[in-house]
Amino acid sequence: MNNLSNKINDIGGTPLDNLRDFVSLDLQKVDELIYKLIKSKVALIPEISNHTITSGGKRLRPMLTLACAQMCGYTGTSHIELAASVEFIHTATLLHDDVVDKSDLRRGVLTANSLWGNKESVLVGDFLLGKAFELMGSASSLEVYRVLSNAAVVISEGEVKQLAVTGKLDISEEEYFEVINAKTAELFAAACQISGVVANRKDEEISALRQYGLSLGAAFQIIDDILDYSADQEQLGKNVGDDFREKKITLPVIIAYKNANAEERQFWQKCFDKNTNFEPSLLNTAIKFINERGSKAETLRIARSITTEAAKSLKTFSNSPIRQVLLDVLEFVVRRDF
Amino acid sequence: MNNLSNKINDIGGTPLDNLRDFVSLDLQKVDELIYKLIKSKVALIPEISNHTITSGGKRLRPMLTLACAQMCGYTGTSHIELAASVEFIHTATLLHDDVVDKSDLRRGVLTANSLWGNKESVLVGDFLLGKAFELMGSASSLEVYRVLSNAAVVISEGEVKQLAVTGKLDISEEEYFEVINAKTAELFAAACQISGVVANRKDEEISALRQYGLSLGAAFQIIDDILDYSADQEQLGKNVGDDFREKKITLPVIIAYKNANAEERQFWQKCFDKNTNFEPSLLNTAIKFINERGSKAETLRIARSITTEAAKSLKTFSNSPIRQVLLDVLEFVVRRDF
Repeated sequence: MNNLSNKINDIGGTPLDNLRDFVSLDLQKVDELIYKLIKSKVALIPEISNHTITSGGKRLRPMLTLACAQMCGYTGTSHIELAASVEFIHTATLLHDDVVDKSDLRRGVLTANSLWGNKESVLVGDFLLGKAFELMGSASSLEVYRVLSNAAVVISEGEVKQLAVTGKLDISEEEYFEVINAKTAELFAAACQISGVVANRKDEEISALRQYGLSLGAAFQIIDDILDYSADQEQLGKNVGDDFREKKITLPVIIAYKNANAEERQFWQKCFDKNTNFEPSLLNTAIKFINERGSKAETLRIARSITTEAAKSLKTFSNSPIRQVLLDVLEFVVRRDF
Repeated sequence: MNNLSNKINDIGGTPLDNLRDFVSLDLQKVDELIYKLIKSKVALIPEISNHTITSGGKRLRPMLTLACAQMCGYTGTSHIELAASVEFIHTATLLHDDVVDKSDLRRGVLTANSLWGNKESVLVGDFLLGKAFELMGSASSLEVYRVLSNAAVVISEGEVKQLAVTGKLDISEEEYFEVINAKTAELFAAACQISGVVANRKDEEISALRQYGLSLGAAFQIIDDILDYSADQEQLGKNVGDDFREKKITLPVIIAYKNANAEERQFWQKCFDKNTNFEPSLLNTAIKFINERGSKAETLRIARSITTEAAKSLKTFSNSPIRQVLLDVLEFVVRRDF
């Protein structure tokens, strides 16, 4: 757990706190806009939206849009609407993902579908997705639409791909990256990229922003996948072992399986067989193997190599305090336990 | 059933056949584009999309986009992409609606969610919705995005509103129209309106197209709601009594309940009580009351008054064969049993 500790001892708070400080005024506007837009004559819509948006969300993706706009010297106001749009896309995928995963807890609170039902979650997700596309109009940029609608397609492809490989212990690391790049990293990438677009930055700068977001998102997801086998529910705010229960094949498992002896392989095959019911003892053994057989260390190493690459992409931009914060966030993500 | 017969005896086929003939070349291009775009490395996506798109869909909405473009003298090619976009939005709502309604049959074939599962249906619906937004880019028109993203918001609001009034026998006709205008008519309206937008027609013409689509869609839904209490499953291609089973309050029921005596009211209250399980005998009695107490006739009268208004809106356009077909479709919709 030492490697994953987020106990930052310097007086400046975590890099995430710093990021929030740098964009705080804009983020407040984003929040105001969000709460204004989820109003509807149909009472269930603000109820469910509110619940999902407020239940401990870190606003990481909209903060990235705001920070990148700042780094690009953007002087307009569309970044507020675009940041809200990104958060709406994210919230819609959470709502649809909850329907899908039948998980009861997300960030430690009951999910919308367990409180209101599957159908309500699907439809309110659709409402938020529609609002996201409405919001994009504020930038009057066809390129912004292109980037974000492509992101919507890629995210859903990633989610379906994830379903398709459920329980398949022998998928390659490459296939794993296809899934996480699509389902998670793509929205991080788009969130950063669109700020470069509205700020009219050069193509290579826009690409650099996209690459930064993509790497940050992939590293973020890898750590999430490690935490599913390590953190306490209280700390993570979701069920430990969710992925295990749902037979999602993640990087720690792929590596553990690859490095396993014959006996351990049988264990993993049993765990991820669709006919095996969840038992806490199986999860405990899985956690033990992932910790003790070098799988966690190897997974972390891969996440770190990704963030190292991501840091290089920001060299396209001249040094500034906000660039430094974005670099620090990379570093922070690979030692988080949030 | 006489009033609802679609047996057209003239040699020209039904107005729907005529509509299809007028746009057949374009419609073929739309279909080719649709099948091209649902390809994905993730095999489940074309499988489920294909199933839902091909299972007997009439392509009514894309045909409206194509026909309105023709009536507006549009000479570009974006109407093909826009028609495909409209069909994708429609297919996405079908997929999400099937998850919601747990109905096993749609147009006489098994629904995607009964074949592949809820989660697959939700996510492939999201994929198609994303593709719909990608396709809009072809028109390079921010106004097209505005119209269609607004439609997406309105549709989901309508679906949630419908859930919220489930089983509420005393909703007003006004509330019923709020639901159907949103969940059904809005996409018909947008499908027509966007053709006027890309053809650069005057605002009043664009409004007229929108009004035509809105009225056509509302009439279409009202007839659908009548058919749920009348047609054979074979003819309609879906379960008769679906709405009844799901305790959806539709216009025939609202009127039957309004006109009911004390004893009949008790019957209706029992039928739509959330604790009452479906029984065929209840449905048979409901059908009897709707047929015999003037509810069906009154519902049809309302649908006809809507199409009469809709016909007026097309007067903005000069007379032409395609305008006549669009007028005939209005007439046809209120005597359909498809």
